[in-house]
Amino acid sequence: MNKIAVIGLGLIGGSLALELKKNTWATIYGVDKNAEHLEKALELGIIYKKADINIVSEVDIVIIAVPVNIIPNLTNQVLDLIKGDTLVFDVGSTKLAVCNAVKNHPKRKNFVALHPIAGTEFSGPEAAIYNLFTDKVNIICEQELSSKSKINQVVDLFKTLKMKSVFMDSAKQHDKHIAYVSHLSHISSFMLGKTVLEIEKDEKSIFNMAGSGFASTVRLAKSNPETWTPIFLQNKENLLKSLEEYIKNLNQFKEILTSESAEDVFAIMQNTNKIKSVLAGIKNQ
Amino acid sequence: MNKIAVIGLGLIGGSLALELKKNTWATIYGVDKNAEHLEKALELGIIYKKADINIVSEVDIVIIAVPVNIIPNLTNQVLDLIKGDTLVFDVGSTKLAVCNAVKNHPKRKNFVALHPIAGTEFSGPEAAIYNLFTDKVNIICEQELSSKSKINQVVDLFKTLKMKSVFMDSAKQHDKHIAYVSHLSHISSFMLGKTVLEIEKDEKSIFNMAGSGFASTVRLAKSNPETWTPIFLQNKENLLKSLEEYIKNLNQFKEILTSESAEDVFAIMQNTNKIKSVLAGIKNQ
Repeated sequence: MNKIAVIGLGLIGGSLALELKKNTWATIYGVDKNAEHLEKALELGIIYKKADINIVSEVDIVIIAVPVNIIPNLTNQVLDLIKGDTLVFDVGSTKLAVCNAVKNHPKRKNFVALHPIAGTEFSGPEAAIYNLFTDKVNIICEQELSSKSKINQVVDLFKTLKMKSVFMDSAKQHDKHIAYVSHLSHISSFMLGKTVLEIEKDEKSIFNMAGSGFASTVRLAKSNPETWTPIFLQNKENLLKSLEEYIKNLNQFKEILTSESAEDVFAIMQNTNKIKSVLAGIKNQ
Repeated sequence: MNKIAVIGLGLIGGSLALELKKNTWATIYGVDKNAEHLEKALELGIIYKKADINIVSEVDIVIIAVPVNIIPNLTNQVLDLIKGDTLVFDVGSTKLAVCNAVKNHPKRKNFVALHPIAGTEFSGPEAAIYNLFTDKVNIICEQELSSKSKINQVVDLFKTLKMKSVFMDSAKQHDKHIAYVSHLSHISSFMLGKTVLEIEKDEKSIFNMAGSGFASTVRLAKSNPETWTPIFLQNKENLLKSLEEYIKNLNQFKEILTSESAEDVFAIMQNTNKIKSVLAGIKNQ
């Protein structure tokens, strides 16, 4: 029976804990600097016991699920504390900073850099849900720097949680791609929400006129600023590049709309309809 | 037993026909210049019989559900053909052009300018579904130019379809607001899809890294260019204004991200989290 410490009991850490409880016989210890979150996680049965950081020296697996600005130093601290064979992994949405931080740690081989591609717009232990990870993809970066047994252990563990593991050699490439397919979506959604709130001072108009399309496009604007501020800052360079390209495309659309070229407006949409096959791929994963 | 003609058997016209069939004893005649769509609608049981435009002189209600660039002239043509007491309404996503077109028609009082706020990203008769309109809002513009009995008839009819009617005096105001809460969402989604497709030439990367957040934000990029090109062109002025404000906000975000001001990045997101109450309103409608 494994002992697992989950550090950070928000949406991701909490949901992982629930899923591990359901699918394995592990005992789960919770660590969170937010005392209310920790208490709530205990109350909700997400964790077996509250603990502090020193618990990591007594467990078999440590899961780090705190905001990405905290992850690099905390991971080094955890690696300092663990006993010989403990597996440590983080689940942050950026991978370069943590990989760089632990690069020269003597226990680097105990660590696996992960990114389970899953989430909702909610946060905190109350947001933890079952099946968040079912049929989703788990990305593993820099596998060659982890020991083979730790990689196998991680792949098996996530298989138990019904996730498929995919390997990406470069943490830098991970951060670049994720800027486009995740981080940029959040900004486009937040700024859409901002634009509409600014014009629609009278909220009643939005209630009446907005439909499911708006709700879908703006859903991510409900996301937690505490989670996303450090992600955006840490992935600044890639994000700025993707934002520039997004703004360029919006300006291009503005120009062809201004020129009233029905043909160009049609073509730009038709070409983008290709996204259908991509989205079908996401659905069928 | 009412006779109803539905002109245009796509997502909206087809779904309305299905709902009318289910909830009333009306006989539904279908008109569509696309012969395949018409045949398909008959096959799927969406319409009772195929017809041509002249059917409108024999029916009690005419529903116009064609692309918005066709609606203004077609509505005049229909009003020319109907008998005295027939109700005519369109369901287009813009209202100013049709309202201006029929303003001086001697049968203006027979016409009601409508916008049922509902849709999906799919199109054609195969996209027609039940419950598309359930608990949604139906916006009625320029009610004072329709006869009172026609307004009552429309409100009752949409009540039967479980929709709430909301009145907006000005078609111009309708088009302005809808630019923000619907049309802009489509462009932000299309351009997000375009940006990601351009960088992610290798679609496999998107499959692996994109999650439900991206899928939600980019969903509208699957929409039909035939429907949306005329909408964007017809609502050009309002849309350009909303696009400018959206781009301004994106540039502002770019600036604060460049300056690495965590406080500002946090604040801009936190302020936009207000959209939660708006979205809760949409859900509970």
